[in-house]
Amino acid sequence: MSHTNLRRSWVSSANGHSDFPLQNLPLGIFSRAGASPRGGVAIGDLILDLGAVAELLDGLAKIAAQAASTNSLNAYFALGAEPRRALRTALLCLLDENSDQQAELHPLLYLQTDCQMHLPAKVGDYTDFYVGIHHAMNVGKLFRPDNPLLPNYKYVPIGYHGRASTLDVSGTALRRPHGQTLAPGSEVPDFGPCKRLDYELELGIWIGTGNRLGQPIAIGQAAEHIAGFCLLNDWSARDLQAWEYQPLGPFLSKSFATSVSPWVVSAEALEPFRAAQQPRPAGDPQPLPYLNDANDQQHGALAIELEVLLLTAAMREAELPPERLALSHTRHMYWTVAQLVAHHSANGCKLQPGDLFGSGTLSGPEPGQFGSLLEMTEGGKHPITLSNGETRRFLEDGDEVILKARCNLPGLPPIGFGECRGKVLPALR
Amino acid sequence: MSHTNLRRSWVSSANGHSDFPLQNLPLGIFSRAGASPRGGVAIGDLILDLGAVAELLDGLAKIAAQAASTNSLNAYFALGAEPRRALRTALLCLLDENSDQQAELHPLLYLQTDCQMHLPAKVGDYTDFYVGIHHAMNVGKLFRPDNPLLPNYKYVPIGYHGRASTLDVSGTALRRPHGQTLAPGSEVPDFGPCKRLDYELELGIWIGTGNRLGQPIAIGQAAEHIAGFCLLNDWSARDLQAWEYQPLGPFLSKSFATSVSPWVVSAEALEPFRAAQQPRPAGDPQPLPYLNDANDQQHGALAIELEVLLLTAAMREAELPPERLALSHTRHMYWTVAQLVAHHSANGCKLQPGDLFGSGTLSGPEPGQFGSLLEMTEGGKHPITLSNGETRRFLEDGDEVILKARCNLPGLPPIGFGECRGKVLPALR
Repeated sequence: MSHTNLRRSWVSSANGHSDFPLQNLPLGIFSRAGASPRGGVAIGDLILDLGAVAELLDGLAKIAAQAASTNSLNAYFALGAEPRRALRTALLCLLDENSDQQAELHPLLYLQTDCQMHLPAKVGDYTDFYVGIHHAMNVGKLFRPDNPLLPNYKYVPIGYHGRASTLDVSGTALRRPHGQTLAPGSEVPDFGPCKRLDYELELGIWIGTGNRLGQPIAIGQAAEHIAGFCLLNDWSARDLQAWEYQPLGPFLSKSFATSVSPWVVSAEALEPFRAAQQPRPAGDPQPLPYLNDANDQQHGALAIELEVLLLTAAMREAELPPERLALSHTRHMYWTVAQLVAHHSANGCKLQPGDLFGSGTLSGPEPGQFGSLLEMTEGGKHPITLSNGETRRFLEDGDEVILKARCNLPGLPPIGFGECRGKVLPALR
Repeated sequence: MSHTNLRRSWVSSANGHSDFPLQNLPLGIFSRAGASPRGGVAIGDLILDLGAVAELLDGLAKIAAQAASTNSLNAYFALGAEPRRALRTALLCLLDENSDQQAELHPLLYLQTDCQMHLPAKVGDYTDFYVGIHHAMNVGKLFRPDNPLLPNYKYVPIGYHGRASTLDVSGTALRRPHGQTLAPGSEVPDFGPCKRLDYELELGIWIGTGNRLGQPIAIGQAAEHIAGFCLLNDWSARDLQAWEYQPLGPFLSKSFATSVSPWVVSAEALEPFRAAQQPRPAGDPQPLPYLNDANDQQHGALAIELEVLLLTAAMREAELPPERLALSHTRHMYWTVAQLVAHHSANGCKLQPGDLFGSGTLSGPEPGQFGSLLEMTEGGKHPITLSNGETRRFLEDGDEVILKARCNLPGLPPIGFGECRGKVLPALR
């Protein structure tokens, strides 16, 4: 591992402060003007065409590169961990500063700024979890001040099914939705544009190999079913949500748009940033046996910094940079991603390659670490003030939300996730 | 219309008490031994191969038959109403007793008993609604005796996203799921096989043409986006559900299996069985304008009888017939299917061909009309006794649940939906 950590690439832009050094090598689906979408790997500010590079490979690495050469990564995800690791090993050699194949690779590399990114996979089912315990506490306090966490929270990795058809890649603008809302004090709802539009800072988890219907995935095998990670913004219409969500959960308040970052950061790239799950706070129950991971040093917590930035129309006009709203961390996940896989399949539910999980909003316990405006403004009661003097209770038209993530531990080359961004368009008239 | 109602088919089995007379002509995906799945139309006890019959057609009818000749009906659904109606008109001629093409059609017909049926379409997203108001009342009473219906019920067509990957066609057995449950009086959950397994009697609604992301479907156009109907059994693990569902709704308690009947009964076949939406009870609010259907004579209520039957292992052993548990009706839907489409897309959510809606459990107000055991036994408190002396609080291993539906109005030839059946297999050990 330490050997890999010292390696540099002959792609010079990969060796500075790039999100995509040699140690990252995330996959995504890209297209150049006039060409069809295809799989690529990010290195520095470039993309390497995987279908083309497959010609230079053999064995499992070639099989993986070929599977990743189409317009979605589903077939690549379905191959599982061994071909994925073989491809990574091959790419580490090809892109290493000591590679003797630079000349062959040069024509297969494209500037990211010349390319359009697409959704990495066709998502069969999208599941959104709720594992950010501080978010659950913060939101619970708004509704139930005396009893913010429900009794099941520390036993059940709470989740629900989301809408797959409205997942889209970073950069896709979203239209402010219409819906039913109940004005304070009223007993009769109105229908109109959402007035409390919000973002949610989440980690996205891409499923690799699936399971057969009726056959749960044991906790010890669960990590092997995860292909990689991304950023996810679970756009939320809070006023629609408050009125509609009882008794069956959020529906139209979430289904208008969900954004994901385009690059799939592999489990292998994150390996140096894994840690044993933090011990649970005193008094918290231990996980039930089907969620108890004996190997949580390897499958456990992730050390990923998560960031939310906001760029308003006024800031764009004044050429100001985006402003940070929150800095959070995946350590605030109450459940590991392996536990999510084991729980989701415990009833025999079939997971499939290209299924997507959202972690739920990952807020820290302190102000400055909250992953939604709902939390930052305490349900809209206390607006935030931005550096340019603007205030926000919720998102306004023209606001652009940018999520970022970075793994940054002493002695390791940092790796990043790229961006997950989306701009709010005005509601239809 | 009345002319069509008098027509008979040269397929003699279509003219008796078949679910599939000439007036029905539902489409599905079938396969014969050794052959690949393909689209067919049910007539009496036979199936007509649509890919083969396309050779005898022209124009829109030929386009529709060709689209329906593959292993899923998604492309056919995407064509919309006009080609679907053209194909229906052509099939009405070909299969009419006065048809002069009987000789050409004979070799394209197969006995249903020689064929296997498949899921009619690849479902992108599956949404389960909750529009059976008596079910909502009955279930609400168990949890909130004084206030069974929540304040949003009569304004919002309540729904939530279900699991698409575990939808399966009638005849597929389901395994009793494991999950977390909280024993009465306990504060710590157990993990084990579900003890309160139940069915839910629902109407399934297949989406035809979709909409563009961000572009709602107006109520006046909503009916045109519906390709057809089926039966749907939303298998439910009540003990898992009670413990997991707060605050984000049902998840693993539903995602282990959902069964649908194989035949898609078209909007055209149901046209004689449409009626204006019944006036709302005095004191109930009118639908908000975006749900107010000026044309509800055409888009409104459906007159479909719905039936639940149970065949236990002991009944099978004794060669007894299945026993009726409930007879209900689609008139118990508080919202029309057009209202469901308009509501679902009101926030701009993208619907796609092959999306599936469940109506929610359709119970009547009286005992004998309840669409779930939860309601029949009042949450398991009062077991039901079957004719052979067996009792049931919830489903036992070996129980087979059979849903049926039939449109039956004076002066019209009745049409049926076929069956939606599933047998409970014991939990994995």
